[in-house]
Amino acid sequence: MVARFSRRAGELRASEVRELLKMAARRDIISFGAGRPPDECLPIAELSVAVTRVLAEHGVEALQYSTTEGCETLRTAIAARMRDRLGINVPASSLLVTTGSQQGLDLTGHVFVDEGDAVFCESPTYLAALNALRRSQPRFIEVPSDEDGMIVSELETRLAAAERPKVIYVIPDFQNPSGRTWSLARRLELLDVASRWSIPIVEDSPYAELRFEGESVPSIKALDRSGLVIFMSTFSKILCPGLRVGWLTAEESILRKYILAKQGCDLHTSTLDQLLVATYLSLFDIQRHIEEVRHECRRRRDAMVGALRRELGDAVACRPPHGGLFLWVELPAGMSARELLRAALRHDVAFPPGDAFFANGGHANTLRLAFSDSPPDRIEEGVRRLAEAFREVRDAAGPEAQLAATA
Amino acid sequence: MVARFSRRAGELRASEVRELLKMAARRDIISFGAGRPPDECLPIAELSVAVTRVLAEHGVEALQYSTTEGCETLRTAIAARMRDRLGINVPASSLLVTTGSQQGLDLTGHVFVDEGDAVFCESPTYLAALNALRRSQPRFIEVPSDEDGMIVSELETRLAAAERPKVIYVIPDFQNPSGRTWSLARRLELLDVASRWSIPIVEDSPYAELRFEGESVPSIKALDRSGLVIFMSTFSKILCPGLRVGWLTAEESILRKYILAKQGCDLHTSTLDQLLVATYLSLFDIQRHIEEVRHECRRRRDAMVGALRRELGDAVACRPPHGGLFLWVELPAGMSARELLRAALRHDVAFPPGDAFFANGGHANTLRLAFSDSPPDRIEEGVRRLAEAFREVRDAAGPEAQLAATA
Repeated sequence: MVARFSRRAGELRASEVRELLKMAARRDIISFGAGRPPDECLPIAELSVAVTRVLAEHGVEALQYSTTEGCETLRTAIAARMRDRLGINVPASSLLVTTGSQQGLDLTGHVFVDEGDAVFCESPTYLAALNALRRSQPRFIEVPSDEDGMIVSELETRLAAAERPKVIYVIPDFQNPSGRTWSLARRLELLDVASRWSIPIVEDSPYAELRFEGESVPSIKALDRSGLVIFMSTFSKILCPGLRVGWLTAEESILRKYILAKQGCDLHTSTLDQLLVATYLSLFDIQRHIEEVRHECRRRRDAMVGALRRELGDAVACRPPHGGLFLWVELPAGMSARELLRAALRHDVAFPPGDAFFANGGHANTLRLAFSDSPPDRIEEGVRRLAEAFREVRDAAGPEAQLAATA
Repeated sequence: MVARFSRRAGELRASEVRELLKMAARRDIISFGAGRPPDECLPIAELSVAVTRVLAEHGVEALQYSTTEGCETLRTAIAARMRDRLGINVPASSLLVTTGSQQGLDLTGHVFVDEGDAVFCESPTYLAALNALRRSQPRFIEVPSDEDGMIVSELETRLAAAERPKVIYVIPDFQNPSGRTWSLARRLELLDVASRWSIPIVEDSPYAELRFEGESVPSIKALDRSGLVIFMSTFSKILCPGLRVGWLTAEESILRKYILAKQGCDLHTSTLDQLLVATYLSLFDIQRHIEEVRHECRRRRDAMVGALRRELGDAVACRPPHGGLFLWVELPAGMSARELLRAALRHDVAFPPGDAFFANGGHANTLRLAFSDSPPDRIEEGVRRLAEAFREVRDAAGPEAQLAATA
């Protein structure tokens, strides 16, 4: 049968990169692909204690249907953490538990975006957010961004020139993929502009608690006095991703739409997983756990940055992030990260090329390296292999490209 | 801030009924609202053993990111059950694990439906399927249905008159809300027509294994030789709903679209929950468990049907279903189920009026009673209260309505 798909599904294609990486997964490969928290840090024993407790004490609740909003105990615990750790003061009733924060992104498209509506985002931005929002067929408008975050004057230029976007999507802390953290000034400027134009800000914040050094900057939500910010986060990086437990908070009229939208998507997030996280939070010290994750990620960042400097020196540009999971790399102008990936796979090392993180493509000489997923010695070995691949690609290029690559 | 929602989100409103039932949840109410499996049957101890085993033996896998398609062990176990219990022969690689089968419905809209596309469904049909599909803004065309299922000659009339639908959505076993089961003849007729017109059939089958009496009828998927049928099911009724583990199977080119669509929605279903179900299936006898659920649901159906006959005699019409969780009731013509609900809530008993289950409304004198969610004595008490409410509504009506109501 030849099925007649929807227009948007007609455009759904497995990316070339995904297929390359999938092929690679079959072999003994060192992958810098996924932003996974370190395997070694997963609190398996603690979660085992907690889940046994949940089933012993709340078995029926854990296994039955629940409300779309999420379990009361979890929402209460999240509200307390947001207040204590992030300076965000919202009641538990303003929270929606989501099936990972990926679902928060999908729901954002549902709630705000009609075909052709403008969505503003950083340049580059999180690939899977683009994929989630594409379901609603927006026009993405990339706002130029630098090491301090989105350049808000550029945002204003685009607001004056283009139509008003439905939402502005940002990741202000240890951004995926660039690793950058917005300055306080930029956060305040964004709030100012967004409130003048009355545009909701979607603040995606999965990494804020994984800071290795320097001072925390308040989240945009913590600075928001106008109810503009839809804040979303997740337990994926600070506890574990397998449970798919995330959350979002928004002003009441907006939250109501998200809840109704989620109802049609999956009724509610796994009750067992919600109660498991809530019980873990009540029995164990998640701050101590996060400290371990932070420590381990920092070691891995240092290993990667050190190995890159040793192996490639100034041939590539990268700026060590102060937290999170990702290092953004620029190859010499004219060198293709996709070509480098093909060579790298022959050396059993993998990474996603950077162009996929730009809503409208381009930037073929960039790539993202996740340093969180391998211990330091594997990272060093992986970077050695990557450097070999780099030299192969450079040496295979014409003299002009070589000149640029060694400049 | 006044947010500018998408057009479809502008139409998202909490239903009056949902609000009524929510209010009701705060009091000691007997609810015939939700199709929950009996609390008393939930295999809490077995799942506790299984989850401990999962974390001890596959802790890292259970807590990390997984593939969108779903865990290999679970897909293999589901494929084996589908072959042995449902006569459906498909390889594990043709399965996608979904976050409940609700997600399968949401993805169906994503994959097939553009705004204004026709979707054919039974009349009445599953309310939450309508809600999931509404995100893609279809036109629903209700096909008249009787005790044997969709009337396929009526389907053909509509195919000749209206545009070809993107999908035909059906629940052939113990349908939600009507309780009816399609005859074999109707299933074959549907396949014949759908294959002549080349229209995918979405077969939603959460209840097929909950048969109390009579012979099983093969699923439409088991009869399908053309790859027309997208079959979806769930562990919600045969194991427990809290885990949100469902699945679907479809012909390869269609399955690929579902997988890519799901990736944007929530990346993947909870890894822990997937491995928990797989491990439960390997350690325990789910057939024995299903036998208990079936036995208990049957007792509850009998209690409800008996009580309705005792309390209301011929004043209402209902046909005891041969399985599943739902009893469909018709009030006398001219009596409003919403009015009955308001009266019933004063007597602390609740149910959803039937009009919400018709894609295009109407049928104000119908209602759905879930018999699975209360033990027999509570059911009998609930039906007594419902009968009091019924008499109040009838007696408050004019003499003409009373005549109809007692006819």
